Amino acid sequence: MMLTLSVPFSSAHLYHQPQWSDEKNRQVFGRCFTKHGHGHNYVLETKFYVTSASCLDDETRYRKILNQLVAVLDHEHLNFVIPEFKEKIPTTENIALYFLEKLKSEVPLEVLHSVKLYETETLWTEILL
Amino acid sequence: MMLTLSVPFSSAHLYHQPQWSDEKNRQVFGRCFTKHGHGHNYVLETKFYVTSASCLDDETRYRKILNQLVAVLDHEHLNFVIPEFKEKIPTTENIALYFLEKLKSEVPLEVLHSVKLYETETLWTEILL
Amino acid sequence: MMLTLSVPFSSAHLYHQPQWSDEKNRQVFGRCFTKHGHGHNYVLETKFYVTSASCLDDETRYRKILNQLVAVLDHEHLNFVIPEFKEKIPTTENIALYFLEKLKSEVPLEVLHSVKLYETETLWTEILL
Amino acid sequence: MMLTLSVPFSSAHLYHQPQWSDEKNRQVFGRCFTKHGHGHNYVLETKFYVTSASCLDDETRYRKILNQLVAVLDHEHLNFVIPEFKEKIPTTENIALYFLEKLKSEVPLEVLHSVKLYETETLWTEILL
Amino acid sequence: MMLTLSVPFSSAHLYHQPQWSDEKNRQVFGRCFTKHGHGHNYVLETKFYVTSASCLDDETRYRKILNQLVAVLDHEHLNFVIPEFKEKIPTTENIALYFLEKLKSEVPLEVLHSVKLYETETLWTEILL
Amino acid sequence: MMLTLSVPFSSAHLYHQPQWSDEKNRQVFGRCFTKHGHGHNYVLETKFYVTSASCLDDETRYRKILNQLVAVLDHEHLNFVIPEFKEKIPTTENIALYFLEKLKSEVPLEVLHSVKLYETETLWTEILL
Repeated sequence: MMLTLSVPFSSAHLYHQPQWSDEKNRQVFGRCFTKHGHGHNYVLETKFYVTSASCLDDETRYRKILNQLVAVLDHEHLNFVIPEFKEKIPTTENIALYFLEKLKSEVPLEVLHSVKLYETETLWTEILL
Repeated sequence: MMLTLSVPFSSAHLYHQPQWSDEKNRQVFGRCFTKHGHGHNYVLETKFYVTSASCLDDETRYRKILNQLVAVLDHEHLNFVIPEFKEKIPTTENIALYFLEKLKSEVPLEVLHSVKLYETETLWTEILL
Repeated sequence: MMLTLSVPFSSAHLYHQPQWSDEKNRQVFGRCFTKHGHGHNYVLETKFYVTSASCLDDETRYRKILNQLVAVLDHEHLNFVIPEFKEKIPTTENIALYFLEKLKSEVPLEVLHSVKLYETETLWTEILL
Repeated sequence: MMLTLSVPFSSAHLYHQPQWSDEKNRQVFGRCFTKHGHGHNYVLETKFYVTSASCLDDETRYRKILNQLVAVLDHEHLNFVIPEFKEKIPTTENIALYFLEKLKSEVPLEVLHSVKLYETETLWTEILL
Repeated sequence: MMLTLSVPFSSAHLYHQPQWSDEKNRQVFGRCFTKHGHGHNYVLETKFYVTSASCLDDETRYRKILNQLVAVLDHEHLNFVIPEFKEKIPTTENIALYFLEKLKSEVPLEVLHSVKLYETETLWTEILL
Repeated sequence: MMLTLSVPFSSAHLYHQPQWSDEKNRQVFGRCFTKHGHGHNYVLETKFYVTSASCLDDETRYRKILNQLVAVLDHEHLNFVIPEFKEKIPTTENIALYFLEKLKSEVPLEVLHSVKLYETETLWTEILL
């Protein structure tokens, strides 16, 4: 049985390669490079394999883990506040990998079906496990 | 006949009363006060009265107007970049009023049914006209 | 208690005032006037007041009535096939009124809350009773 | 600003007037009267007036209250387990009133816009305050 | 071409291994084991391969079959009323297999793409054929 | 990263093999064969592989291409007006192939993930690339 948990969070980010000039950053990243950034209502959608016997307990446990992971990024500016994104650009792919890394130390990999990060409803990245 | 146009945009904002101390700002605005801000996929949902005869032309014209209004805020940090929000806090209400003000000079008030601004899917403000 | 029943149907239509020249029709109706017409997946959404005691029977009965009404228009070209729309233009308002007229002879008016006809997801007309 | 909180719960219920014969119950309640009952994924949708300053804290607080109210009914058979529904039939209206009664002792009435209970996506009752 | 038919039904169920003690049942099944059970708005979502020529007739025929299958479980308590679930626990997987078994005698296997059973919007099981 | 663009258009069509008799057409195509046709709100849903660096520019460019492709069919009767469908029946599959053919000359095939054409919400064809 598959359990889908969707957890939203609202953060700011910007695309910026620090070793490049402003001009090169603007040329490569377009509107995604600005001084102060912009933001999104991200949604982290994680799918778990569960069994009928334990699905309610699993849901409670997984939701608690996801809420804690997401609370760290929620209402923050990813580039300026989150250590992992001081060097690495907080692209949708990198944020998805960030969550996968954190999840690995909380749940066994074999219960994870996929980690999908929506930047908007129509723009997302998905890691199938 | 009613025409509903929904236009998304992604911006950063923060709640900050400049004449207050950081402490007072934190006390009043909680997680919405931070130094760099956070962000949302806002949705501007506007409802227009249209007639059968002209509904296609109206849709084209209204959509163009809304896209232009929204493009100014899209991918910007509202507090730091948009003149109207340098003094006034970019709350959901204030952003909705900002759009209503701009719309008034583009379309006659009597074709407007409502201006609704979603900060998230579950948090919104609506001005019925 | 409110029961909402949504019934889709797929028809073709065109906007055409027969006593006008092609030129005048094109000028007034724009892209909605063409020789052969275009089409929509319409949705007839009707809301009924129901009581807890009878809501299942009511749903079965009302759905049957709506299915029969809609079957007459489904997969037809409204202008060329449906008698009521040979003289009257099948605008969204006129199609909604057509359904209200038919419904009146099938259910008592006081159980009807509203008749709403969607031409598309963003273009509709609603008759509140 | 309006905050909408939707909280699901899964319960069983049946329609049964204890002082009536089985025959009369069946005649009045139809398929909703059975010996063991059936069930629904109910959704309690509550709308609150909030201000920009406190909307995040309000959301956390209201969600906690709603989760606690809903946990009492979740995964239970309403007729056999919940004291309030031993005498009173757990109709959609009565369940909505049950939640309104409980909410009144937790939040001031003036912050409540409405309490809406969905039995299914198309069948609901709403109390506007 | 793919045709998706979604048919809802509302039933009660409980998880209970009759040869176990109440204590063991509670330990294994948690909140899903109770004396009277709870319930869901299940949705049976079936996908069929169809051709352009016959898709309307196929839809009518398949919908009729699905409605009949679902009517047997609708508004019943699966454990106490449906013979197949007197011995076998009505888990989401077992209910999906129940429908697949019934469908096999009504439609050729090669027109079936998948049978998916939603217990809630976020908890489902899918059989790909 | 995946970008999903959904573009609606409203057209009329009918199923008709010109070398067959009306009787044979009616027998094979059922309600989809009529003299004047019926219509749909089609949705062309195209998925593109994009990179973080260029996703905003890509979205603008791809949306413009799709809007131009769709404008040709929008508000027209496909059988009577579009040259490609004078000989070939405008089935959902053929319309999807029509768009794929047009897209191939506008974007490199390797950025395309899939082209999906919805005739209704429940009836669609998908070409995975």
